[in-house]
Amino acid sequence: MSKIGVVLSGCGFLDGAEIYEATLTLLAIDRRGITYQCLAPDVEQLHVVNHLTKQPTGESRNVLIEAARIARGKIEPLAEQWLDHCDAVIFPGGYGAAKNYCDFAVKGTGCDIHPLVASFMRKAVERKLPVGVICIAPVVLARALKGMNIHPRLTVGGPGGAAEAIESFGSRHIACSVTECIVDDTLNIVSTPAFMYDARISEVAQGVDNLVEKIAALIPVRH
Amino acid sequence: MSKIGVVLSGCGFLDGAEIYEATLTLLAIDRRGITYQCLAPDVEQLHVVNHLTKQPTGESRNVLIEAARIARGKIEPLAEQWLDHCDAVIFPGGYGAAKNYCDFAVKGTGCDIHPLVASFMRKAVERKLPVGVICIAPVVLARALKGMNIHPRLTVGGPGGAAEAIESFGSRHIACSVTECIVDDTLNIVSTPAFMYDARISEVAQGVDNLVEKIAALIPVRH
Repeated sequence: MSKIGVVLSGCGFLDGAEIYEATLTLLAIDRRGITYQCLAPDVEQLHVVNHLTKQPTGESRNVLIEAARIARGKIEPLAEQWLDHCDAVIFPGGYGAAKNYCDFAVKGTGCDIHPLVASFMRKAVERKLPVGVICIAPVVLARALKGMNIHPRLTVGGPGGAAEAIESFGSRHIACSVTECIVDDTLNIVSTPAFMYDARISEVAQGVDNLVEKIAALIPVRH
Repeated sequence: MSKIGVVLSGCGFLDGAEIYEATLTLLAIDRRGITYQCLAPDVEQLHVVNHLTKQPTGESRNVLIEAARIARGKIEPLAEQWLDHCDAVIFPGGYGAAKNYCDFAVKGTGCDIHPLVASFMRKAVERKLPVGVICIAPVVLARALKGMNIHPRLTVGGPGGAAEAIESFGSRHIACSVTECIVDDTLNIVSTPAFMYDARISEVAQGVDNLVEKIAALIPVRH
């Protein structure tokens, strides 16, 4: 049975993983009879945001511990060894991707990326493991691949700062609607914009389901 | 356009709302072209649980503020006035329902219930507003209706302590599989067991979708 690693950046769109994108990814995987393993880096969040007032609270929370809420406790620390046990990896979005994997949300195209996340993403792409990136996560992938002479076709929806960042990192940005996804079938990378648009949950569900469908199709059949 | 109130007890199954049940409820509502309003009581959580170790952390968190993570910030404090603006109400489960709406998780059938939650549930039922209760939430509804001479047919899945509690509060427990729901079409109350079973997310999605389908069918057509 195939297994897909789902990498989470916390729990809540303003400081962690976007909850609907993460949940709908797991649903789309499970519906296809594929198993999943949730993973998250064991690092402190950049900050904690009160999702009612949208203001930082001054608290500290850990990405892995908060992501465990979405994973119902079934989660492991992100580590390269998981690339040996997964047939594909998917990164849902949320500001957590741009705050906890890297500091794009603060520094823009001058951002740094967490070495473990960068290395995990690079090795997944080098192995031609199917990689799915949702919402803002394509920007993190483009940053991870910067300077590597790998130039995937990625989408964050329409034009704007995130699309320009993707191009500045050496990847190519392709516009895409919320219900569709962009497939780079040379590199086995699939992306969908999700909540880069002010979208309805049912539209995001359709885009995420399309992404998982393409990722599943890219997993080689094992004999 | 019809509107369904979705009442959340926090964010995370061990101390708040079960994230998949909540997300899949919103998805099932939105897919039917119905709008929703997320609501949560503005009260402190009973406690905060580390979802990785499953141990209490000693932190304090507020139910409304944490539930705002699931609602993407679009949430209002639970108040009876919302019964005038909603055509139905749904309560997803998670331990938060049995820890923050009442203290059933601590005291069992001797539990107390938060007066606002009790009053909101009672008035919804008295008005014959369609009410959906998921997972452990039927126990909270049965506790709210205790002593009222209202005896709904409810399910929490199979027999056990939660089913016995429902009966002890004066409601009737009907066994039900994870993908199905129980409809009390005299009282307009629908329940589905969801993660009362050790279920797959796709099974819970089917049960929740069935519940929302029945709730939608119970909403009177407005002319």
